[in-house]
Amino acid sequence: MEKIAVDMDGVLADVYHQFIQMHFEESGVLLQEKDLEGLTEYEAFPHILKHVHTPGFFRTAPLISDSQEILEKLNHKYEVFIVSAATEFPLSLAEKQAWLNEHFPFIDWKHMVFCGSKEIIKADIMIDDHFKNLDFFEGQTFLFTQPHNTHKVNGKHKRVHSWKDIEHFLI
Amino acid sequence: MEKIAVDMDGVLADVYHQFIQMHFEESGVLLQEKDLEGLTEYEAFPHILKHVHTPGFFRTAPLISDSQEILEKLNHKYEVFIVSAATEFPLSLAEKQAWLNEHFPFIDWKHMVFCGSKEIIKADIMIDDHFKNLDFFEGQTFLFTQPHNTHKVNGKHKRVHSWKDIEHFLI
Repeated sequence: MEKIAVDMDGVLADVYHQFIQMHFEESGVLLQEKDLEGLTEYEAFPHILKHVHTPGFFRTAPLISDSQEILEKLNHKYEVFIVSAATEFPLSLAEKQAWLNEHFPFIDWKHMVFCGSKEIIKADIMIDDHFKNLDFFEGQTFLFTQPHNTHKVNGKHKRVHSWKDIEHFLI
Repeated sequence: MEKIAVDMDGVLADVYHQFIQMHFEESGVLLQEKDLEGLTEYEAFPHILKHVHTPGFFRTAPLISDSQEILEKLNHKYEVFIVSAATEFPLSLAEKQAWLNEHFPFIDWKHMVFCGSKEIIKADIMIDDHFKNLDFFEGQTFLFTQPHNTHKVNGKHKRVHSWKDIEHFLI
């Protein structure tokens, strides 16, 4: 069975929704995702490090549309591993595991990976929103669209805009 | 630079010392490592699941001899990743990262991996005390001697009895 490494933040967890909400609570300014296209996450959200260090940030992230239903379908056809860059934010480790257990109960502990660099990951397919993770990966790569990556291009990676796109290509 | 995946429990962290101590506190019986050779960890310590779920178990584990000094030397010659099967015990995630930060401050967050199955790990060399982790690995494998593996043989894996042995073979 082919292995798929699926990212969390920006692929399963809608962290932009969280960032926009926290930015609004701090500043009163409600940003629109469209206005953030082409900006890195650090440019779009000057206080992003404060946000991600806030207890509960990862635990309460909303889901990206259709991710539950289609990941469960993927999980029947492939061996799915959730691979999340998490060790930069030690608080996030337990929150991320609890979040996965709540929203993706069909993913058992054997198929969760919390790491730093993803250069050590071996699988057949990777789905991620960051080039830094996809560029070193040897298998097939899918770039999940998020505002920070909309203006970037790498012909090696197949761009997908939604989980419906993933369903179309992989199921 | 070649990548090495180094296990924690039984390679850096002396979990047998912890198990023996907790067994003694419960039963009054002081086990000797020599008497545990050939037994799985579950056979040697009937209450092992209770032990590993005890808060502080991983945070207070003693170091395996010479691991600090020789891992630091390895870290100059190779790209060292610490790869620990941790997601089975969610409490352990934060404890393990804090333990690494304390005892191995030269290992940054980018080089820590907390996972379940290690079948998703890609590196050039793996050092581990469990066959289940080494058997699927495609690179060079070193089996670190622990009582549970003393009676097992797999010609593919080079057995090392100590960090001095690792220094001898890899530095």
